[in-house]
Amino acid sequence: MNAQFISLEGGEGAGKSSAIQCIEAWLTEHEIPYILTREPGGTPMAEEIRELVLSARDEQVAPNTELLLVFASRVQHLNEKIQPALAQGKWVISDRFVDSSYVYQGVARGINESVIDNLVDTFLKNQLPNKTLLLDVPVELGLQRVQSRGESNRLDGESLAFHQKVRDGFLHRASQDPERFVVVDASQAIASVEAQIVAQLNALLAGHNA
Amino acid sequence: MNAQFISLEGGEGAGKSSAIQCIEAWLTEHEIPYILTREPGGTPMAEEIRELVLSARDEQVAPNTELLLVFASRVQHLNEKIQPALAQGKWVISDRFVDSSYVYQGVARGINESVIDNLVDTFLKNQLPNKTLLLDVPVELGLQRVQSRGESNRLDGESLAFHQKVRDGFLHRASQDPERFVVVDASQAIASVEAQIVAQLNALLAGHNA
Repeated sequence: MNAQFISLEGGEGAGKSSAIQCIEAWLTEHEIPYILTREPGGTPMAEEIRELVLSARDEQVAPNTELLLVFASRVQHLNEKIQPALAQGKWVISDRFVDSSYVYQGVARGINESVIDNLVDTFLKNQLPNKTLLLDVPVELGLQRVQSRGESNRLDGESLAFHQKVRDGFLHRASQDPERFVVVDASQAIASVEAQIVAQLNALLAGHNA
Repeated sequence: MNAQFISLEGGEGAGKSSAIQCIEAWLTEHEIPYILTREPGGTPMAEEIRELVLSARDEQVAPNTELLLVFASRVQHLNEKIQPALAQGKWVISDRFVDSSYVYQGVARGINESVIDNLVDTFLKNQLPNKTLLLDVPVELGLQRVQSRGESNRLDGESLAFHQKVRDGFLHRASQDPERFVVVDASQAIASVEAQIVAQLNALLAGHNA
């Protein structure tokens, strides 16, 4: 069986951390070697780029600056971490990947989709995840969850309209590529969310063992 | 008269710092408002990106990671510093600009020219310098100068063959765009180098006053 590359996507407070715990438990149970990683980031250098992107600053950041930084970290992540792990037969679970660029830098910051397509074609080639789990949750519920955790970063400070664009953007991405995407209803109770995720992992394993 | 955007290019030890002092003296003498800036860098955020690119690290840096980081800093530099200065009628003198990407990330790191052309078209549009002064010096002489200053960064540690590729790459760029480029023989005594630069500045001023 080929190693699988799975990304998790979703807006703030969608429950990606809980979903990842659930995936790790499933992988461990099935004795599947894996790495857990995230974007922006994933290698020491890519994490430094993440810091640059997410830290609050006085200087206005041009949307294209943010886009290019995120792609720089992604190229590094892919070359130095994801591809070597897949080559060793390890599954790769990434907290966000390229779809976050279409949504955060594209839809929400107003960068044209064709500009991002162009970067994907040039710099990622065919290195997309095999499966992308989109944790979908209404904006107000997601933000309530973030607030209750007491966390904040530059993106959390954006307006409600921004977060609505993010949700709509992810759902649009999912509708454009239904083979790769699975939309998980993340507004439900945690047990139900986990059941949806495990069903997908079982299907993925069965499909590739078949 | 439109404000001029002048870049300086050249390998290690070509004498860019002395050339910049000479240009500043000329601008002051002619009472021309200007800003002096550099790449990678030029704004606080772009300088942070510069640090990321130039600092020594154990992690292998993918050539495309370096290219995308340099373009991220360039977009930020252009949007937040160069364009506002030109709009205010200030001349912009930049220690390196886009030609350094063609040479350092392109020729020397082996990235295809078309990949860089693509980034230039998408992210810089027509924002190239009006005039580019290429300070050209034989590799051995340039490296001797750097050594005598006791300076070093990640790029200085490259092999002689690398520096030769850099010199050849800049000369090739200049031959492709002879209207924008002026090749200055920087192996000569400082007074002669300064005379070549001042002659170009006088021509630029005369041309735009004509």
